[in-house]
Amino acid sequence: MPAQPSAPGSRPTLEAVAARAGVSRATASRVVNGGEGVRAHVVDKVRVAIRELGYVPNQAARTLVTRRTGAVAVIIAEPEVRIFSDPFFSRQVRGISKELTAHDTQLVLLLVEDRGDYDRIERYLAGGHVDGALAFSLHTDDPLPAITRRIGMPTVYGGRPGWTGGPGEPGGVSYVDADNRGGAREAVRHLLERGRRRIAHIAGPLDQTSATDRLDGYRDVLRESDPALIAEGDFTSAGGARAMAELLERAPGLDAVFAANDLMATGALRVLRERGLGVPGDVSLVGFDDTEQVAEAADPPLTTVRQDIEGMGRLMAGLLLRTLARGRTATAGGAPPESVITPTTLVRRASS
Amino acid sequence: MPAQPSAPGSRPTLEAVAARAGVSRATASRVVNGGEGVRAHVVDKVRVAIRELGYVPNQAARTLVTRRTGAVAVIIAEPEVRIFSDPFFSRQVRGISKELTAHDTQLVLLLVEDRGDYDRIERYLAGGHVDGALAFSLHTDDPLPAITRRIGMPTVYGGRPGWTGGPGEPGGVSYVDADNRGGAREAVRHLLERGRRRIAHIAGPLDQTSATDRLDGYRDVLRESDPALIAEGDFTSAGGARAMAELLERAPGLDAVFAANDLMATGALRVLRERGLGVPGDVSLVGFDDTEQVAEAADPPLTTVRQDIEGMGRLMAGLLLRTLARGRTATAGGAPPESVITPTTLVRRASS
Repeated sequence: MPAQPSAPGSRPTLEAVAARAGVSRATASRVVNGGEGVRAHVVDKVRVAIRELGYVPNQAARTLVTRRTGAVAVIIAEPEVRIFSDPFFSRQVRGISKELTAHDTQLVLLLVEDRGDYDRIERYLAGGHVDGALAFSLHTDDPLPAITRRIGMPTVYGGRPGWTGGPGEPGGVSYVDADNRGGAREAVRHLLERGRRRIAHIAGPLDQTSATDRLDGYRDVLRESDPALIAEGDFTSAGGARAMAELLERAPGLDAVFAANDLMATGALRVLRERGLGVPGDVSLVGFDDTEQVAEAADPPLTTVRQDIEGMGRLMAGLLLRTLARGRTATAGGAPPESVITPTTLVRRASS
Repeated sequence: MPAQPSAPGSRPTLEAVAARAGVSRATASRVVNGGEGVRAHVVDKVRVAIRELGYVPNQAARTLVTRRTGAVAVIIAEPEVRIFSDPFFSRQVRGISKELTAHDTQLVLLLVEDRGDYDRIERYLAGGHVDGALAFSLHTDDPLPAITRRIGMPTVYGGRPGWTGGPGEPGGVSYVDADNRGGAREAVRHLLERGRRRIAHIAGPLDQTSATDRLDGYRDVLRESDPALIAEGDFTSAGGARAMAELLERAPGLDAVFAANDLMATGALRVLRERGLGVPGDVSLVGFDDTEQVAEAADPPLTTVRQDIEGMGRLMAGLLLRTLARGRTATAGGAPPESVITPTTLVRRASS
């Protein structure tokens, strides 16, 4: 490794820039971060000082040249094997990609295989290589929110973050989500209407709000539900199969299953078939998501709760781009967080 | 947009840095690009001059602080819908990701939806946000090689590039490939050994060398093959189905099909079943790739040519990291390009 240009202590500071330009530190900072609201001749003075001193802001090369990178990071907090096997992710990325492309912004996808990757991701985000971040499929103890807050990276989340309003948390964050709870209620009501009485639920991983919100919706309708009728899965087909086997063990008389996503529903379907149980004859089955590769391709095709996954991706990207255009951050500072909850629709097919 | 810090003309040049440091332009350039082969006290002099003048190299913020970004771009020259539906890509990315992670290097995935995206990708690559690039699934007229050459971005290709040795091309590029031609030969010889005589081929898109090399391997063995037995697909399942229907129309007596990848083989399988043709009873079928999600999951499971997709990903990343460690570019300059051809293996299953 070549040595750094100078010892950290000898780097010119923002204070030195401000002093040389004869302005306040706040004004110098504003110029470094884009110059909005600063008069042109003041901007020029600060830039001259930056150049003369060779000032390099700690966090971002972009701010050095007071230019945006024109790129946005997309961070999916799931191992690559999940990202490529669940069409939810490709759809969300497609929506994001369309919106970013329409605004000539480069999508930069960062993979997170495990927690150890976050140090490196923090360095990359802090390095000024992207203007903002879109993050989805976060788990409650995910380190990403703390990272984006620490480095002041404007961020919009896909899915309501689990930490909102927690102790020591800021007022809120910007996110786009589906009406998970309302959609789950509709799924369960539909099964009741079909005459089903022992309705089980295969939940997603309960460290994600999409899973807990759907479980809450199930409980809203079935207030006295037998706990034996609820099993936790992990949003994969294999996890759905395991949960289904567990449910059949604990509650063999079940006559319906609401799975918190389509992939888990296909795993459940496989187990039901192996046990000689007909769908929907013996057991009615409803999923969540509605992707053609999974819900429509299943045999029988799945009744499911449709969420507009691609549309949510576009909304996330749009929210972030508007935040960036205003020159404020979505996660901190003066800008109030914005959130959008998109509606869900029950799509009836042969499985119920 | 805030104005640039100064008019382009007034920016300090590399010549000015060299003059101030009392070194040649070549030496100053070497320091800007990492300082390899330059004595420490000379490096220090140049860095002082860089700092004093506020010199900002045109192409890369990284070179300003003579620090690598610690990130590598992965560019897959296919629309997102292909990337997420063909397990080949996730496997290749997995191999790359493992190797980069082992060297604490951030993987930055850039999606290319269409040709119009390349201007933006060039800006991003030229912006100094990554140290090098890994590109795969290129087509013969892909603009990417010209871009990486123009901006001097060290690049390793997945798959032998079709333009090597073309007029006006540089000596060569670094790439990792499988022995596509040898693997295809083995597939066709296997079908001959099974007693098949009317062996058809579903080729991949013929603007990719992986497709033309496999077609060449088929022709190596069947020198007198009837052109009616060859149809071009596009490496997707739907394309394989279309090609199969075309082949059955033109050559109804065919008794075997070698498809240039597994996804096309599954499409062919669907069409054969629809026509009431048994596999392997009436028609033997062999694919290429060997991914468990496709080849093993098919009914019957596919005989196929296995290539070590993940291993090729690791090799690509390793080749690039070594190139970067040497501080040279893989595409131009003094470093000779390095290429690796990995062996293939025929995996016999029920479809043949």
